[in-house]
Amino acid sequence: MSDPTPSYDFDRDIQVDKTGADEFSATLTDRWNGLTGMVNGGFLSAVALSALGQRVSFPDPLVVSTFFLRPSRPGPVRISTEVAREGRRTATGEARIRSEDGRETVRTVATFADLGAASGRLLELGTPPELPDPEDCVNPMDALDMPQLTLGQRVEWRAPHMPGFLSGEPGDDPTFEFWMRFIDGRALDTVALAFLVDAAAPAVLEVGEFATSTMELSVHLRARPTSTWLACRVLTRHIAGGYHEEDMELWDTSGTLVAQSRQLAILG
Amino acid sequence: MSDPTPSYDFDRDIQVDKTGADEFSATLTDRWNGLTGMVNGGFLSAVALSALGQRVSFPDPLVVSTFFLRPSRPGPVRISTEVAREGRRTATGEARIRSEDGRETVRTVATFADLGAASGRLLELGTPPELPDPEDCVNPMDALDMPQLTLGQRVEWRAPHMPGFLSGEPGDDPTFEFWMRFIDGRALDTVALAFLVDAAAPAVLEVGEFATSTMELSVHLRARPTSTWLACRVLTRHIAGGYHEEDMELWDTSGTLVAQSRQLAILG
Repeated sequence: MSDPTPSYDFDRDIQVDKTGADEFSATLTDRWNGLTGMVNGGFLSAVALSALGQRVSFPDPLVVSTFFLRPSRPGPVRISTEVAREGRRTATGEARIRSEDGRETVRTVATFADLGAASGRLLELGTPPELPDPEDCVNPMDALDMPQLTLGQRVEWRAPHMPGFLSGEPGDDPTFEFWMRFIDGRALDTVALAFLVDAAAPAVLEVGEFATSTMELSVHLRARPTSTWLACRVLTRHIAGGYHEEDMELWDTSGTLVAQSRQLAILG
Repeated sequence: MSDPTPSYDFDRDIQVDKTGADEFSATLTDRWNGLTGMVNGGFLSAVALSALGQRVSFPDPLVVSTFFLRPSRPGPVRISTEVAREGRRTATGEARIRSEDGRETVRTVATFADLGAASGRLLELGTPPELPDPEDCVNPMDALDMPQLTLGQRVEWRAPHMPGFLSGEPGDDPTFEFWMRFIDGRALDTVALAFLVDAAAPAVLEVGEFATSTMELSVHLRARPTSTWLACRVLTRHIAGGYHEEDMELWDTSGTLVAQSRQLAILG
């Protein structure tokens, strides 16, 4: 069961109420809006996982795919869930979020597992971003006057230097490396990671693309994080035909890759 | 409607028959089996897209996520489809494949678009694999005695040199670069790409991991290919806790990235 009085904004706002065997209700607050003033996609994915997690017997989302069908405004929603398969090591299910008018806004399919019990060979060929300590970094929010970006009041970013798009000098490489955490100190878990992979400024801002909407977001949750700060790398390599991908990596401070995501987004 | 007598194996074998408003039947042949002798995951994804493509008014899968719930053996299957949203520029739907015993084996959610009408800025920061001409490459199938790998009779690979795992000298970098095409000369389209992203030897073979099963496969279809040969790059960077990701890129010979995929797989 959900904690009736969660202490942190994130827990309070991803909370869902069971209204039937496979139905939930929830209220999308206005505290997780992105640049466009709509509810952030990763946050919606976390709300879907919050419902689905009550239907399966494994604690961690392991691989998640969320399709965004329509923009999500704050307000009441209904979430229907369905378990496709409950196995010995993993369970897979689906959650659909509908707004009050009955229109589906979000569809998530996810496989859950127990990452606390995961074991096996480690071969890590990637490298975490090399960043100065967070206290030696700048806060990009200091350069932003965007009251509609309400998630910026709940998530803190720290970057080695102000991104070019904020300092008035856009670059030619849509890559950002930075720190990220919950401002209120909430500890990280795999559901929070499924939100945070989408909580950075889109990398394409750096090459002058200011209007981009996520169509689909895929996330791999690879380990439970052991720190509250995450070292993050977000980048886009391929812009073509009005679409672009964006890849994100989240590393905890022990040097473990804890989540990896890829999204396809549409420009304009 | 489907061509009643397709000329190529791939078209013949992804063909589905409409049995109701949103129901289809199909027969999975034994011609697309992978290393394990089970039907290849990318091929199953293409079968799901073949059904879903009949329900939406856009020709190209653009982003596809397929969850593999149970192994698929050759035999008759039923495919149920559902259109979640049909929009002005894209349509999103879902297909579920069930085996004869009624158990769901594959669940695909996909957004379709018209890539023939796609236009916009091109910013390509990736690079295609640099490969000798296919006729100057080796054929890895010459070193394999794997009759169960029936898709190897339909897909041709050409590599600059024999991969280490085949020459008896496994390496420490799970990356392969190679050419790929349909042996029978079938032209490439976006549905074929959704299969071919999964038609290479798993990169983890190179580091001695011989048993891996795909849990989820995400594909971005970025352009219609203009060649029959594809320059391919498949790699794994993160093996941990019994899981690994695998990324694949397919480039046509004009140097266009035509598809990109990522999968999460389980070892053992």
